[in-house]
Amino acid sequence: MDMKVAVIGASGYTGLELLRIVWRHPRLELVAATSEKRAGQDVGGVFPALRGLLELRFEALDVAALAPRVEVAFTCLPHATAAPAVAALRKAGVRVIDLSADFRLRDLATYEAWYGAHQAKELFGQAVYGLPEVYAEDLAGAQLVAAPGCYPTSALLPMLPFLRQASVEASPIFVDSKSGASGAGRTLDEGLLFAEIDENARAYKVAAHRHGPDIEQEASRAAGEPVAVTFVPHLLPTIRGIVSSVYLQPKRPLSQAAAQALLEEAYADTPFVRVLSPGETPSLSAVRGSNFCDVAAVVDPRHGTLVALSALDNLVKGSGGQGIQCLNLMCGWPETTGLLEAPLSP
Amino acid sequence: MDMKVAVIGASGYTGLELLRIVWRHPRLELVAATSEKRAGQDVGGVFPALRGLLELRFEALDVAALAPRVEVAFTCLPHATAAPAVAALRKAGVRVIDLSADFRLRDLATYEAWYGAHQAKELFGQAVYGLPEVYAEDLAGAQLVAAPGCYPTSALLPMLPFLRQASVEASPIFVDSKSGASGAGRTLDEGLLFAEIDENARAYKVAAHRHGPDIEQEASRAAGEPVAVTFVPHLLPTIRGIVSSVYLQPKRPLSQAAAQALLEEAYADTPFVRVLSPGETPSLSAVRGSNFCDVAAVVDPRHGTLVALSALDNLVKGSGGQGIQCLNLMCGWPETTGLLEAPLSP
Amino acid sequence: MDMKVAVIGASGYTGLELLRIVWRHPRLELVAATSEKRAGQDVGGVFPALRGLLELRFEALDVAALAPRVEVAFTCLPHATAAPAVAALRKAGVRVIDLSADFRLRDLATYEAWYGAHQAKELFGQAVYGLPEVYAEDLAGAQLVAAPGCYPTSALLPMLPFLRQASVEASPIFVDSKSGASGAGRTLDEGLLFAEIDENARAYKVAAHRHGPDIEQEASRAAGEPVAVTFVPHLLPTIRGIVSSVYLQPKRPLSQAAAQALLEEAYADTPFVRVLSPGETPSLSAVRGSNFCDVAAVVDPRHGTLVALSALDNLVKGSGGQGIQCLNLMCGWPETTGLLEAPLSP
Amino acid sequence: MDMKVAVIGASGYTGLELLRIVWRHPRLELVAATSEKRAGQDVGGVFPALRGLLELRFEALDVAALAPRVEVAFTCLPHATAAPAVAALRKAGVRVIDLSADFRLRDLATYEAWYGAHQAKELFGQAVYGLPEVYAEDLAGAQLVAAPGCYPTSALLPMLPFLRQASVEASPIFVDSKSGASGAGRTLDEGLLFAEIDENARAYKVAAHRHGPDIEQEASRAAGEPVAVTFVPHLLPTIRGIVSSVYLQPKRPLSQAAAQALLEEAYADTPFVRVLSPGETPSLSAVRGSNFCDVAAVVDPRHGTLVALSALDNLVKGSGGQGIQCLNLMCGWPETTGLLEAPLSP
Repeated sequence: MDMKVAVIGASGYTGLELLRIVWRHPRLELVAATSEKRAGQDVGGVFPALRGLLELRFEALDVAALAPRVEVAFTCLPHATAAPAVAALRKAGVRVIDLSADFRLRDLATYEAWYGAHQAKELFGQAVYGLPEVYAEDLAGAQLVAAPGCYPTSALLPMLPFLRQASVEASPIFVDSKSGASGAGRTLDEGLLFAEIDENARAYKVAAHRHGPDIEQEASRAAGEPVAVTFVPHLLPTIRGIVSSVYLQPKRPLSQAAAQALLEEAYADTPFVRVLSPGETPSLSAVRGSNFCDVAAVVDPRHGTLVALSALDNLVKGSGGQGIQCLNLMCGWPETTGLLEAPLSP
Repeated sequence: MDMKVAVIGASGYTGLELLRIVWRHPRLELVAATSEKRAGQDVGGVFPALRGLLELRFEALDVAALAPRVEVAFTCLPHATAAPAVAALRKAGVRVIDLSADFRLRDLATYEAWYGAHQAKELFGQAVYGLPEVYAEDLAGAQLVAAPGCYPTSALLPMLPFLRQASVEASPIFVDSKSGASGAGRTLDEGLLFAEIDENARAYKVAAHRHGPDIEQEASRAAGEPVAVTFVPHLLPTIRGIVSSVYLQPKRPLSQAAAQALLEEAYADTPFVRVLSPGETPSLSAVRGSNFCDVAAVVDPRHGTLVALSALDNLVKGSGGQGIQCLNLMCGWPETTGLLEAPLSP
Repeated sequence: MDMKVAVIGASGYTGLELLRIVWRHPRLELVAATSEKRAGQDVGGVFPALRGLLELRFEALDVAALAPRVEVAFTCLPHATAAPAVAALRKAGVRVIDLSADFRLRDLATYEAWYGAHQAKELFGQAVYGLPEVYAEDLAGAQLVAAPGCYPTSALLPMLPFLRQASVEASPIFVDSKSGASGAGRTLDEGLLFAEIDENARAYKVAAHRHGPDIEQEASRAAGEPVAVTFVPHLLPTIRGIVSSVYLQPKRPLSQAAAQALLEEAYADTPFVRVLSPGETPSLSAVRGSNFCDVAAVVDPRHGTLVALSALDNLVKGSGGQGIQCLNLMCGWPETTGLLEAPLSP
Repeated sequence: MDMKVAVIGASGYTGLELLRIVWRHPRLELVAATSEKRAGQDVGGVFPALRGLLELRFEALDVAALAPRVEVAFTCLPHATAAPAVAALRKAGVRVIDLSADFRLRDLATYEAWYGAHQAKELFGQAVYGLPEVYAEDLAGAQLVAAPGCYPTSALLPMLPFLRQASVEASPIFVDSKSGASGAGRTLDEGLLFAEIDENARAYKVAAHRHGPDIEQEASRAAGEPVAVTFVPHLLPTIRGIVSSVYLQPKRPLSQAAAQALLEEAYADTPFVRVLSPGETPSLSAVRGSNFCDVAAVVDPRHGTLVALSALDNLVKGSGGQGIQCLNLMCGWPETTGLLEAPLSP
């Protein structure tokens, strides 16, 4: 009755988070965790948090050997590296939830402008975009899912309801996102050292981050017209979490009550989006370690502009947890299976 | 089949942690959360992390009204305030797990020297000391449990095996503990402001902390002779967690292998104490959000002294989680019921 | 030859920073530090960082006794409390640099809408706005200066050059600021506890913060027309610092090179504003402990919008240091006297 | 009149700190900063904090070309790499303050047991140990100084006075030190990533750290007999700073007053060691960015053991600042020249 699962590229932070969630998921059995760098090592030696919980060794990825053992694979590989692995797994009949950027975009030219040549063109455009609050129906029975990145999830959930109702201008939209350091992965980069990040904060890749096109693509679909997003990510001195503030201009005067109602209706039936009460603002500590995305909307009482806000845990709702949420829907299980946890606060 | 539970004094950090753990525990039903200051307020408004998970309002403590509704209560009140509440709950037939200092000590004079007059002398000395790794048998069926503080748990678990075997001198023993800020509770104190604690660290209450007598009492019982502990707590810039380094002198030469073996034997059957492999050291990130206490021992190869190390999450194994572990044993349930979670890392 | 200085309300973080800077300033002699709460206590006992450097006790504020001893006073009192103290000091002939909000605004109705009745109306509108990069000429010889808050300094410096040249639309302008916890002062507030702020981030007082009118007032003066600013402050897990991202729409297409040139010209002669090179972004660590404000501008290459960025230390350029910079100009000393320090990094 | 200075290996954190201190030192002129990796790059581009302050490019180390331009060099190279560079500089007549481990030890066998073969044996044992509170007289006129590491400085200053008076047992002594992440340098190591260190703490290299022999050597000299130190370093989630707690056993009963008096006498004339008042404990925030080392001593009132405590900034008193303090003494300048700064707090 359990579904057999592999986590491909499991030695980074997204991999670790997936191991944690799969471990506690009542319908999943973890069969394999791959890592080229850590092949042969104990999972509990590499990740001391998992000592005594998982009796497993990392293995090198060998699709032919792996495919008969698993029904579904989560791929946590860098873009460009992911595409051929995904293609091989799909060819071998394994359902795939890809957490890389390789299958998120719908326009090949856009992909290639930001990432270079695509390595599995035959599958390009075949994936369901794994944002369950939007694509729940498409996810049912899907064979290939492209889970959106942490920034797009954080930017889209608070603004989509307003775009869908055509209640805000499509241009310009400013998305100011602030992310913890784990969003950059377990990468050996001087800029990610503790002494560089603690007590620090800064914008980076201003209007030049690869998650921008992702955001625009889905915002435009919701709006039914091209949307222009200026996306500005910032680096925060936190391990986890993204807070985003999205700056919008209502087409017609919008009351605070109407904005609140619009959000509440949009998310009345989605278990992981919590619409905050007026006066409350989303915070990282309220979602830490959980699959929740908290959202809120504030209308500037003097100028009538609209600020849509969100907070999520980038490793859960921003990647691993969202992947599991997709899998639940793919399998027809309750959407919250293995995912409904009280956030770790303080 | 569920057991009905109240958390008394639930608006602090220990209270919040108990709400979180009770919420996910399959055998417990949370019936009441009391707080004088927050009475009437929604739990989810006070603790945004719990929004949408708990439909409950804080209530003022009224033992007469509460007792018929619950079978067990966790008391998270300050010392001296706790004792009369515990006495009233016990008189009304409610089983109590007390997380204050009021029933931890066995010697009344010692209690009164450190805490002042005891407020429920008739119960003093009646509680089981809630360290399950030592008192599992006494906990079965217990009606009143005094859960040890976070520091004593952290200090005792790595050193008790050596004292029990009489393999180390009873005096002097130095315990150097480092605690995150949540150990001081949700207290309005200038010294607990973010700007005072971040990028800072310091010793405090050197050889003068109230948890010292607690540590000595249990260490002495294990050793079978009076033990002299100089206990030096330090404040760390972390939210959660305690790491302790205990400095011991072997009576006879002790090899690294023998020290390791002694720890492994002592904790072979305890699900929440993980003995690390030689070369590994306990870290907060490996236990965060979990009920694990990781321990290790290192013999100084040049001087033969012994360093016993531990790490735990002060809000879980150091208080709320340990209380639940006691309850599991009191009820004859598997010790890990509702408690076995993968630590949140990174 | 030294100028005798008092710091009024010196037991908070702004006060501490002023003590630090006055201590090292070659032309200033610290004569008095007042604090009602700490009166009689050693400065070095209250602020351990200053042990051995300052031989001084806090005193209660007594303007009559103080005035003959000092030539200039920095007032670091809460708004409404500051105004009468400032009035008394001025009447006694003491030059005042006020770091409260009481004299920053030019429109009394606006002041009273945000802060309540003004306590020294006879002086309202008499102060020079203490932003030296704009008002250097007015500061020469000034008797009363209202130093701008940390948020307005951070928001205004990157955007004023564009408003002055009428190169951007006056409405809407979005200011997304992120501040460290010391910006809220040494205040006993549950929300400022370490365990609430660390690993956390959130927006607060969205479009409702008292520094908003301040920003609009000065932006409008620069633009020569009313400017509509939606100001959204965020709380960061850092002790010091503010980074701001200001979202603007050019009236006419603006090239990256033109934006860069405009900033460089505007700040060619201001010693504390550093215009970063293209590709660099302002960061807190590059300004920590210093009076620098780093600024940069990025034109979104796809949509043509403009993002103006800044970073400063809220306790230096955002308050105490800026006050000293004003004093240097008031006294005709070189603007950098006692202020030019290498930031503390990492 | 200025002395011309080079910083060798200037692109790490110690190098940056030396650049900062040399920049503000009134008697020093920075002539060269070397870095093989950064050769040709602007110092202000590599270290944004120094933008606009230093007009200098990193250069590759070329002793022949450098020697005629400088009178003194600070070498901040890794051990083993440092020794030949130091030898070459000395041969060329340059005075050297070496911040590596290569010249700290007096016993070659001990050096080679911990570090491998020495690369400049002819100079081994020729350096003055650069702890000014002990070796001020030897430093006057010295040509080669080996500045002690951050841990030894932190461990030795609080305990030396007690060893010198033979008031404590020589064995065992436990040194429990807690260091911020910058102590490990700007090294690309997974364990130094922000997500690994924040909210974390752990012991490492227990009784096996290379700074142990250093501590024992100087402690033994002070005691006049061999001292056995078990040294246990811990990693803290701070950028800067070390706090150490040293556990000692008095030979004869020692009163709190006597311990206090002994410390105060020992440091009556040393400008950078501040002996705290009874009841105060050293903290990182009180020394941040300064050359101070705060010390205190507490006698356990129940057991008579002695806890000696210290706090310092590892990049200042623990390396760069201490090097400058040595240079001041070498040159016969006042010991505090360019070094007496108010710590940056909060």
